[in-house]
Amino acid sequence: MIPAGLSLFFRNAGQLVTLSGRPVPRRGPDLGELGILRGGAVLTRGPIIVAVGRTRDLEADARRLRARAIDCRGRVVMPGFVDSHTHLVFAGSRVDDFEERLRGRTYEEIAASGGGITLSARLLGEASTRQLCARACHFLEQLAAHGTTTVEVKTGYGLSVANEMKTLRAIERLRKQSPLEIVPTLLAAHAVPAEYRKRPRAYIDLVARRLVPAAAKAGLAEFIDCFCERVAFSVAECRRALEAGLRHGLIPRLHAEQLSRTGGARLAIELDAASADHLDHVNSSDIRALARSGVVATLVPGANFHLGLRTYPPARRLIEAGAAVALATDFNPGTSPTVNMQFILSLACSAMRMTPAEAVSAATINAAYSLRRADRLGSLEPDKQADLAVMDVDDYRKIPYYFAWNHCVMTVKRGRIIYARV
Amino acid sequence: MIPAGLSLFFRNAGQLVTLSGRPVPRRGPDLGELGILRGGAVLTRGPIIVAVGRTRDLEADARRLRARAIDCRGRVVMPGFVDSHTHLVFAGSRVDDFEERLRGRTYEEIAASGGGITLSARLLGEASTRQLCARACHFLEQLAAHGTTTVEVKTGYGLSVANEMKTLRAIERLRKQSPLEIVPTLLAAHAVPAEYRKRPRAYIDLVARRLVPAAAKAGLAEFIDCFCERVAFSVAECRRALEAGLRHGLIPRLHAEQLSRTGGARLAIELDAASADHLDHVNSSDIRALARSGVVATLVPGANFHLGLRTYPPARRLIEAGAAVALATDFNPGTSPTVNMQFILSLACSAMRMTPAEAVSAATINAAYSLRRADRLGSLEPDKQADLAVMDVDDYRKIPYYFAWNHCVMTVKRGRIIYARV
Repeated sequence: MIPAGLSLFFRNAGQLVTLSGRPVPRRGPDLGELGILRGGAVLTRGPIIVAVGRTRDLEADARRLRARAIDCRGRVVMPGFVDSHTHLVFAGSRVDDFEERLRGRTYEEIAASGGGITLSARLLGEASTRQLCARACHFLEQLAAHGTTTVEVKTGYGLSVANEMKTLRAIERLRKQSPLEIVPTLLAAHAVPAEYRKRPRAYIDLVARRLVPAAAKAGLAEFIDCFCERVAFSVAECRRALEAGLRHGLIPRLHAEQLSRTGGARLAIELDAASADHLDHVNSSDIRALARSGVVATLVPGANFHLGLRTYPPARRLIEAGAAVALATDFNPGTSPTVNMQFILSLACSAMRMTPAEAVSAATINAAYSLRRADRLGSLEPDKQADLAVMDVDDYRKIPYYFAWNHCVMTVKRGRIIYARV
Repeated sequence: MIPAGLSLFFRNAGQLVTLSGRPVPRRGPDLGELGILRGGAVLTRGPIIVAVGRTRDLEADARRLRARAIDCRGRVVMPGFVDSHTHLVFAGSRVDDFEERLRGRTYEEIAASGGGITLSARLLGEASTRQLCARACHFLEQLAAHGTTTVEVKTGYGLSVANEMKTLRAIERLRKQSPLEIVPTLLAAHAVPAEYRKRPRAYIDLVARRLVPAAAKAGLAEFIDCFCERVAFSVAECRRALEAGLRHGLIPRLHAEQLSRTGGARLAIELDAASADHLDHVNSSDIRALARSGVVATLVPGANFHLGLRTYPPARRLIEAGAAVALATDFNPGTSPTVNMQFILSLACSAMRMTPAEAVSAATINAAYSLRRADRLGSLEPDKQADLAVMDVDDYRKIPYYFAWNHCVMTVKRGRIIYARV
């Protein structure tokens, strides 16, 4: 059955990076399998891809559908990026913290003097939903301009039931307004609010008894997340919050082993979480356990870059052990203020020694899998959603190679052109 | 006297980053002095800035000159970047080398199998001047789109008198065609050509006796540069080439102490070079000597980033000792394939702990000084050239903070708009 709607015909892709086929998620050597067609084409109708093949083989079908032809002139055409970890809804910026850190102040000192997540929480509390959405819309447009078509958005700067719910409502409004696909995650336990400083378990009680049920009842979140870290919440506290989420139909994700090894990766595996994110401090046994599990190892090297760290998550060891690796921007004002997934690919290669092919798989099909959308997103195949990006290079490897620059000239979501550069 | 020509009036800059005043170059605490005017304006006529001040104070003059008003709506307006170290004229790419390195092959192995500078030299030899210019033009447009208005361009992939002269002619053609200001440097000794492998001094003879006189006679170079390194040329060989340049009126610059400490920084000081570039391996005594000298320490952290190095040049120690520090992209296909000076500022901050203000000075006024153009370029002051960039942020610190994304919405060179984004 051919879906109704307008039809687009992307012809003459120099490299059509399809990522078609099995298995999903990609692991080990499969992570570098891109299914590239030279001189390839994609034919869409309405929001769906109806055919993928060589340009000459699809010309007749395209004419029959009266498709609008888009000549890709030898460029790379690939699935739109799936950015599976962002904190995109925030107020203000943390540029003061940035400068203070450069002048030698530590994260702890900055937090103690009112910066850090506390600052973001205060500013978010003062902002209206409308202000939050206006700002987030600007960032969503920038994400689209860099080739991203699906984005997970976390709450987490609320630090109270009321402000977390406000953030969820802002995300819901964005979901309705933006051409991008937005996946809402309740980051229920991000930092211990000041008034709970000496009794974090009491805040977890509040999360489990009030926040999670309210979010689930309103249908405003798909996933639940926690920050499992010495400076945030313990494994036991995160377990309690995530289990409350599970009882209400929210799928766990987890910030794990970022600043130190706390056992978060093990907790993610125990709860069959969709993803364990950061993972800078996993040990060999954690890596083996992740490789045996269905948990996606989501690496967010933008944070390491921005903080000027000399070390990065052990991508190669994870890949070689057979873990399913994804990449994301971690877009947030404190540690990773970037919307550019292309640059995350550059970091994956230059700083973590992933190959360009591994990085592309990690930022598309594996990220889609971690958002439980690999049946619809993350590859260019018939019957999948028509989400794609046209990159102004003739070789996909040049996307990470020519770094810190935007190669995207067209972004298509659900069969509609949502960004085009002349 | 007011110069003839069309007039532009940039009004309502949120921050007008003037970098006005002395001393030039900036050293130590002065490196962070940006001379910011809030609500500032710039009035140009023809290629020159005629006034800089508060918007309301310049309105009458702007009307008198019938200036075209450009409302900057609270954005940052700053001098165009001066990119004082690039290898912008090349053929092909080195994306194969990039992938091979990620797969674990060393630079030496890649070079031995026909990659590296040898590959770039072969491709450059095969390309016509026209092909070289077409490709370089694309990159110059990208530089302009990222806020750069002046760019130094080195030869160096020729590895023969004929191909070095061909590269200089390509640069000369670009200089006439491009709206950007192009500063030509003869990188006379970049790598030892295969046929001179066992007798690099014989190649230096050729450089000193034939290449340098030919380049100088044709008036095609302002500066002369060498790669002083164990894998390239010794201090004595570089001295010989640079002294030949000096005799023919070419000002020395030098690639120094990049991969190891060879004494290149001392040679640059001895010859009163305009700049010593890279400097990863300078020691404390080199740093003190640079601080006492007129040589600009040009740091190019893009190469460290792309090669995935864990260490960066000692920017803080150089600044604190009082050296004049500049920043540049080092745009080249082998080690730094980026045109984005904004990202070099991000690297300067995140990886080298420079403050945003220090990074801005280093990429404008100090870089202009190292190109012997600080009297005309690098700051927004009356009688200077009207070279500026409008950035879509309200605080200059957000240029490095929001990393790997292009904030430039307008670039002006010699009073003409050469790039504008809607």
